[in-house]
Amino acid sequence: MAAHGRLTVAAIVVAGGAGVRLGADVAKAVCLIRGRTLLEHSLEPFRVLGEQGRIDQLVVVAPHADLDRARELAGSGVDVVAGGSTRQESVRCGLARAEADLVLVHDAARPFVPVAVLERVIAALLAGADAVIPARPVVDTIKAIAADGTVGTTLDRTALRAVQTPQGFRRELLIDAHDQAPDAGATDDAGLVEAAGGRVVFVDGADEAFKITHPWDLLVAAAIAPVSAANREAR
Amino acid sequence: MAAHGRLTVAAIVVAGGAGVRLGADVAKAVCLIRGRTLLEHSLEPFRVLGEQGRIDQLVVVAPHADLDRARELAGSGVDVVAGGSTRQESVRCGLARAEADLVLVHDAARPFVPVAVLERVIAALLAGADAVIPARPVVDTIKAIAADGTVGTTLDRTALRAVQTPQGFRRELLIDAHDQAPDAGATDDAGLVEAAGGRVVFVDGADEAFKITHPWDLLVAAAIAPVSAANREAR
Repeated sequence: MAAHGRLTVAAIVVAGGAGVRLGADVAKAVCLIRGRTLLEHSLEPFRVLGEQGRIDQLVVVAPHADLDRARELAGSGVDVVAGGSTRQESVRCGLARAEADLVLVHDAARPFVPVAVLERVIAALLAGADAVIPARPVVDTIKAIAADGTVGTTLDRTALRAVQTPQGFRRELLIDAHDQAPDAGATDDAGLVEAAGGRVVFVDGADEAFKITHPWDLLVAAAIAPVSAANREAR
Repeated sequence: MAAHGRLTVAAIVVAGGAGVRLGADVAKAVCLIRGRTLLEHSLEPFRVLGEQGRIDQLVVVAPHADLDRARELAGSGVDVVAGGSTRQESVRCGLARAEADLVLVHDAARPFVPVAVLERVIAALLAGADAVIPARPVVDTIKAIAADGTVGTTLDRTALRAVQTPQGFRRELLIDAHDQAPDAGATDDAGLVEAAGGRVVFVDGADEAFKITHPWDLLVAAAIAPVSAANREAR
């Protein structure tokens, strides 16, 4: 195994979304963007660092029913494991297979993460962080909605960050955090580490790393896929 | 003047941004998306409702130095006025020219707002709201950043809304809210009305109504402009 100093890195790509908000009749991970599945796009930056010996293991977590398809899409050299009934359970399944000091946990719903973001996350882990979150400034005003559906408070946007993935962790620490709150239903791994008292830091994410959630996002993804690919090559 | 019942509607489009975060060497409003300026795209849904007699007046607020260019882009039938040194001042300049019972305040930085969003905002005003905010659910986890730059709290995303424009107001009420806090430096008009005790409600915004802030947004805008135009026709 290649190593950063002596620390090895595994990437866990969670392909769990059912695509309900997407209005798709197939799992989100197999939706096509310019003829390639979301999962294949999402794996791409990890493959790039894998080929450079900077990521040592790639684990894909897929629903049990989709394992064969996921294996086919991921190809050789990738460990594909079945997930659980919640995102948190699926991350645990991936963690159980990961054999490395550091883990990156990524949502397959973010197909266009630049390699540079992965590099920033890994660098922050190597610099000693317990957990690392790539994030972007929030551009829209954010308001809280009151219990009656009217507008509650306006938040101070400058103090907010929109969280992306892959998030990075010391593997043992993330396992401990999961053990401490096994039923938290966490959709945000760093939140578990925060709750467990870990030191979590931000690094800059990327606008390209947006999440595919609504039908509009697939339109955008298809439109910008060539630009994104060119960007990736350039870095 | 056409009227909804007896209430008239003016739209104020604020074209103030210098485009610093965009890395542009021209004002944001004159950046080109597929050969048309941001300002022209942004005016389009208001023109559609204007032609239908459902918006009675269109006011563009532009920096003093850009008034001639703004007049040329806006064309006849649009009132173009000079703005102030802050967004809040510019909105006041627009309000001073607006002659209608209801006003919609829009940022020119959102070029692809569907007509349907304008219709929802106007409908909510006609139903009695003091102020109306089009908003979308927040798809990314949002975290607050602590004073030392590390991660502070994780917010409950389900209770958050990302605020868009155009926001809608009873004109007199928005003027009062400005008078009560003339130096608030407000970037969010509804926030002024909230502070003044008004009843502010949400309506559903649209993913297409995203704000042009970073260079990436211009790439997305250029890529999806034809889709957006088709969507607009269809509604």
